[in-house]
Amino acid sequence: MLQQLGLIGCGLMGGSFALALRQAGLVQRVVGYSKSAGTLARALQLGVIDSAAESPLDAATGSDLVLLAVPVAATESSLRAIGTAVHGGMLVMDVGSTKQDVVAAAQRALGEHVSCFVPAHPVAGSEASGVEHAQASLYQQRQVILTPDARTSAPLLAKARAVWSAIGSHVLEMTPQAHDAAFAAISHLPHLLSFALVNSITQQSRGADFLRLAGPGFRDFSRIAASEPGMWRDILRVNQAEVLAQCQQFRASLLALEQAMLSADGAALESLIEQASQTRAQWRMGPAAR
Amino acid sequence: MLQQLGLIGCGLMGGSFALALRQAGLVQRVVGYSKSAGTLARALQLGVIDSAAESPLDAATGSDLVLLAVPVAATESSLRAIGTAVHGGMLVMDVGSTKQDVVAAAQRALGEHVSCFVPAHPVAGSEASGVEHAQASLYQQRQVILTPDARTSAPLLAKARAVWSAIGSHVLEMTPQAHDAAFAAISHLPHLLSFALVNSITQQSRGADFLRLAGPGFRDFSRIAASEPGMWRDILRVNQAEVLAQCQQFRASLLALEQAMLSADGAALESLIEQASQTRAQWRMGPAAR
Repeated sequence: MLQQLGLIGCGLMGGSFALALRQAGLVQRVVGYSKSAGTLARALQLGVIDSAAESPLDAATGSDLVLLAVPVAATESSLRAIGTAVHGGMLVMDVGSTKQDVVAAAQRALGEHVSCFVPAHPVAGSEASGVEHAQASLYQQRQVILTPDARTSAPLLAKARAVWSAIGSHVLEMTPQAHDAAFAAISHLPHLLSFALVNSITQQSRGADFLRLAGPGFRDFSRIAASEPGMWRDILRVNQAEVLAQCQQFRASLLALEQAMLSADGAALESLIEQASQTRAQWRMGPAAR
Repeated sequence: MLQQLGLIGCGLMGGSFALALRQAGLVQRVVGYSKSAGTLARALQLGVIDSAAESPLDAATGSDLVLLAVPVAATESSLRAIGTAVHGGMLVMDVGSTKQDVVAAAQRALGEHVSCFVPAHPVAGSEASGVEHAQASLYQQRQVILTPDARTSAPLLAKARAVWSAIGSHVLEMTPQAHDAAFAAISHLPHLLSFALVNSITQQSRGADFLRLAGPGFRDFSRIAASEPGMWRDILRVNQAEVLAQCQQFRASLLALEQAMLSADGAALESLIEQASQTRAQWRMGPAAR
C-alpha cells in the first residue's frame, strides 16, 4: 500500500493511473499538480486526485511514488523541479513514449538519485486527451515497458513491476535503445503516416468532399491522426533518427507495391498484399501475442 | 416487396445484404450462387439463402433483384453469365469498390439491358470476409453510392434507392469518375499504406519482436491490412491511375513532415500535425458528416 501518489500532470495518462491505483486499493492519498489550473480543478472534481499541489515539488514532497505524466519534452524540467524532494526510497516513473531522451534527462536532472527513476512506457492511451477521458481500466491487459539500467535501484524496480502488475498491466523490460527502435516502427511512423494522409487529402481542392464519403477503413486508419500535436511534435523530434530510418524502410515497401501496380504484375501485387494480410490477420495485441 | 433476390456471391457483402432484406421483410425468397460449394452450403445452413443455385443464370432467373457481390474483376463474367435472364423490369446491382470499370463491364456484358444495371458501392464492410461474418446490420447508417448515367432506367434507379434506404443506408449519387477519384484518396490509398507499413516492419530482422510490442494505435491503423488480397489486387489495378496519383500527393505530404523534422523546425512540424489533428478530430463518418 502506498501512502501517497504524487501525480505531476493530470491528463489522460496520469489521471487513469491514479484512478487505477485507487480502484485497486493501492494508494491512500493522491496529490496532483497540473500547470493548467482548469485541469487541476477538474481532476479534483472528478475525484482523480485528493488535493491540488501548487508545484511539482509540492506534489512530490512526502510521496512514496511520483508519476510524471507530462509530454516527454517536459520530463527534464519536471524532474529538476522535484529534485530536492527525491530521496532513496521514493519511486519516480514517467509514462513517455520515448525512452533514451527520458533516461538522459533523468541523469541530468537527478544526478545520483537517478537510481530512484524507473523509466516506464505503458502501451496504452487514446487519441482523446484530458482528465475527462481518464479511466481506471486504461492500463488493464496492456503492456508496460520498463527501461531500467545498471544505476536503477533493484528494490524500486521491483516495486515498479508490482505496481503496474497490480493494476492489470503486463510488464516487460528492455533497453531504452531497443524500445525507441521498436516504437519508431510500430507507433511513431504510423502516426506520421496518418498525419500525412489526412494532410494529403485536405490539401486537395476536392478534399472536403472526399472526406464526407469516407467509411470505417478511413476512420480506423486515421484515428491516431487526431492525437495531440505538441506531444507528437516532441516524440517525433526526440526519436527522429529512428523514425526517419523507419520512414525510409516504409518508402521502399510502398514503392514495391507501386511498381507491382505499374508493371501490371497482378501476381506480384497479390503476393505483397498477401504478406501483409497474413501477418496482420495473425497478429494479436499485447500480452495475447505471447 | 420483392419476390426473389438472386444473390451472385454469398460472402460478407452479399450475405449481409440478404440478411438485411429478410430482416426488413422486403423479400420472399433468396436464391444464392457461389462458385465455392462450401460457401453455398454455409449460406444455406446459416439461413442467408433459401436455395442454392447451380449457376449465376439459375440464381438470376425469375429474380426481380439481382445483387452481384463478387470481386470487381469478376463483374463482367458474372453479368455475361446472367445476360439471357435480364429483362427490362429486373434490377441488377453490384457492391464493388470501384465504379468506372464496373460501368464499362456492364455496358459490354449487357448491351441495351445496361439500363437495368444500377452500379452501387455501399461504404461498409470489414477486414473479415466470408458468409460467417455476414450481419443484417452491416449497411445500417452507412452511405451507399449509386453511379447511374443517362442509360440507367429511372424506375429501376428509384427502386435501388428505395431498397438501400429500407435497410437503413443513406443513398448518394455521383459519377463513376468522381466516385473512383474520391475512393482512391479515402480508401484505396489507406489500404496501400497499411499493406506497405506491415510489410516494412516484417521485412526487418527485428520485425517480429517489434510487432509483439504494438498497441491500440497500430491495431487500428493496420486493421485494413488484413483485407482480402485478391480483392485488393483487383481494386488497386482497376483504379491504378487514381491510386498512384493519390500516392504521389501523399508522398509530398509525408516529405513535408520529414523535412520539418530534419530542419529541427518544431513550429512547422507542430503546425503540420495540428492541421491533421484538427481535421481528423472534427471528422464524422458517413451520414453524420452531412
